[in-house]
Amino acid sequence: MSTLKHRDILLYSDTARSADALYFGRVNVPDAFVALSAGGRKVAVVSALEFGRVKRTSDFDVVLPLEAFNEKARRAWPGKKPSAARVIALAVKELKVRLLTVPEDFPAGLYKELCDLGIRVAISEGPLFPERELKTPAEALALREGNRCSAAGIAAAERMLRQSTVKGRRLLYKGSVLTSERLKVAVETACIEEGSVSDSTIVAGGDQACDPHNRGSGPIGANELVIVDVFPRVSATGFYGDMTRTFLRGRATDAQKRIVSAVRQAQLAALSTIRAGVPASEVHRRVSDTFVSLGFETRHTASGSTGFFHGTGHGLGLEVHEAPRMNTHSESPLKKGAVVTVEPGLYYPGVGACRIEDVVQVTGASPRMLSNYPYHWELR
Amino acid sequence: MSTLKHRDILLYSDTARSADALYFGRVNVPDAFVALSAGGRKVAVVSALEFGRVKRTSDFDVVLPLEAFNEKARRAWPGKKPSAARVIALAVKELKVRLLTVPEDFPAGLYKELCDLGIRVAISEGPLFPERELKTPAEALALREGNRCSAAGIAAAERMLRQSTVKGRRLLYKGSVLTSERLKVAVETACIEEGSVSDSTIVAGGDQACDPHNRGSGPIGANELVIVDVFPRVSATGFYGDMTRTFLRGRATDAQKRIVSAVRQAQLAALSTIRAGVPASEVHRRVSDTFVSLGFETRHTASGSTGFFHGTGHGLGLEVHEAPRMNTHSESPLKKGAVVTVEPGLYYPGVGACRIEDVVQVTGASPRMLSNYPYHWELR
Repeated sequence: MSTLKHRDILLYSDTARSADALYFGRVNVPDAFVALSAGGRKVAVVSALEFGRVKRTSDFDVVLPLEAFNEKARRAWPGKKPSAARVIALAVKELKVRLLTVPEDFPAGLYKELCDLGIRVAISEGPLFPERELKTPAEALALREGNRCSAAGIAAAERMLRQSTVKGRRLLYKGSVLTSERLKVAVETACIEEGSVSDSTIVAGGDQACDPHNRGSGPIGANELVIVDVFPRVSATGFYGDMTRTFLRGRATDAQKRIVSAVRQAQLAALSTIRAGVPASEVHRRVSDTFVSLGFETRHTASGSTGFFHGTGHGLGLEVHEAPRMNTHSESPLKKGAVVTVEPGLYYPGVGACRIEDVVQVTGASPRMLSNYPYHWELR
Repeated sequence: MSTLKHRDILLYSDTARSADALYFGRVNVPDAFVALSAGGRKVAVVSALEFGRVKRTSDFDVVLPLEAFNEKARRAWPGKKPSAARVIALAVKELKVRLLTVPEDFPAGLYKELCDLGIRVAISEGPLFPERELKTPAEALALREGNRCSAAGIAAAERMLRQSTVKGRRLLYKGSVLTSERLKVAVETACIEEGSVSDSTIVAGGDQACDPHNRGSGPIGANELVIVDVFPRVSATGFYGDMTRTFLRGRATDAQKRIVSAVRQAQLAALSTIRAGVPASEVHRRVSDTFVSLGFETRHTASGSTGFFHGTGHGLGLEVHEAPRMNTHSESPLKKGAVVTVEPGLYYPGVGACRIEDVVQVTGASPRMLSNYPYHWELR
């Protein structure tokens, strides 16, 4: 890791909340712990609960027992609690580290305590590990695996929709009303069977889907557009998948057909624009222009927005939303190796909503698809 | 919320990472957003992607559109990006807030930027919402629901173990080798069916289980102790369950029986000690004393620890690990209304490991059980 040559870093988080901590140590630690580098060596200070496992299975070169540091802290500051700051202060002294760089999301309370203890701490400007944005072949494979899980989830939802029968405005599955909840159980079960955990799955139909982050609840209507957005985390690697398809069980109206067609056209326009060196904002502009040229307007009102009112995509990796972003203001050029979602959408209460999302890796030519699922959507 | 009378607060996080943000706004927001209080009113600044939903379904009194603040920031700081710090600075000015208190885990980078912009920010000493520790009846019910999900997961694992057949040192389920992975799929599927998501489920047998945070992998042995630790998050509320049972399919040795019996005795000793006003460390001491009196030693070596080497329990709520802790050093008295896990364990490579975990609410008398599952464990 080239950055270690230039500076020593400090992290204090659990690995579920901090992708940097997971990236640095390549081991899951469910409670906040001290991770730092000292002259290029990776050091962790962990409790007995984690010690053996971290020692055996992580990227850390040195694993130190927290309990011993707590004892030292009690002796060094009699009558005071052996806080994380005091433990870090002792470790830094032992390891002879002069300056520690911490990520922007380092806890402010701990930052201040360290400063008060006279430890020199610099807050990273921008990401602590900029190289996280550029995915290695192994990381791209892990993201492909994430999207294989997403696809399994989407397939489970599609199967359930297909096997439902239209009864008036409702759908019946195995004799009872099909709901968002039942579809989400099917999606999430499929993800688990593939080795991933899908939290916050979105299965939203009709007007609910017009709120892009509404996860959906209650009966799924016949002849309604249903957004299925699945972003599972692969348990073995920590990498995510993130795919969306929109289905309709029954008969689509012309207005619904025009929406779905426009979203797919916009996605293809984005995909044909993505290439190393192109500003991310240009990809987004191509999507917006496609919608405008097809007659789809975006409006912002006091009660909410309609049309296309979110970014075209975001980086995907050990976080479900990470660098780079692709929106109006993200003017930086796309970098070779970056992995982004491409997810235009249109949202019109009364008619319905459609979002189609795939994941690609930026190359010097056409982007490499890291997700794979058909685009047929009207399930008659 | 009484704290709002005394001070205005500021949060900047998504609600998956910050339980404080979820507690404050009672709405899921998957990207970092600005939440603050101004003279007792709760204010959120969110993008168009969240606007309608947050406005309709949250506890926020005022919901402001991020896009408008970004525009204002571009005008106020020409040529600069409308960072979160600049948006907050503008919002604070508009809302006439003089001093903002942030949680200890507020991002250090943003804290420093706000200070540089002249915004007065105080870092909370201790929890931002101390009242989160004391669960209301509705919150206790939500935790009970979490543990109902945990129990459903444990039941699925037990069922699978019972339905397996012993073949030599292996177990066969439906004709093929039973593994940790298959058991975890069963556990997590059951949780999903009950409306919760179980991440990082532990199903570990034999020596793997002697590492308390080893999630388990590969074949489950016959006649081996298997720890099943299930801590799902209920999707509707964000509250967790957290229960552990230890099973053995086949025949237990006397050594294994002694371990399981000691762990249950230690748990009962803890449960009989927990009461409002009792120092949490005393509960932990009762557990340690029980193990010592039954002849179970704890040892720390260079390769890891054996015996009982973790805390007796932790608070459970919108985080799976929160205040209060129950370990050697947690001398504060338990408070009425606090909810804690009670999870003694013994870990001896070569013999096996056992942990039994339930969840209780502290009262003025015997604690109230918020989890419920039988304690039989030897599945012949």
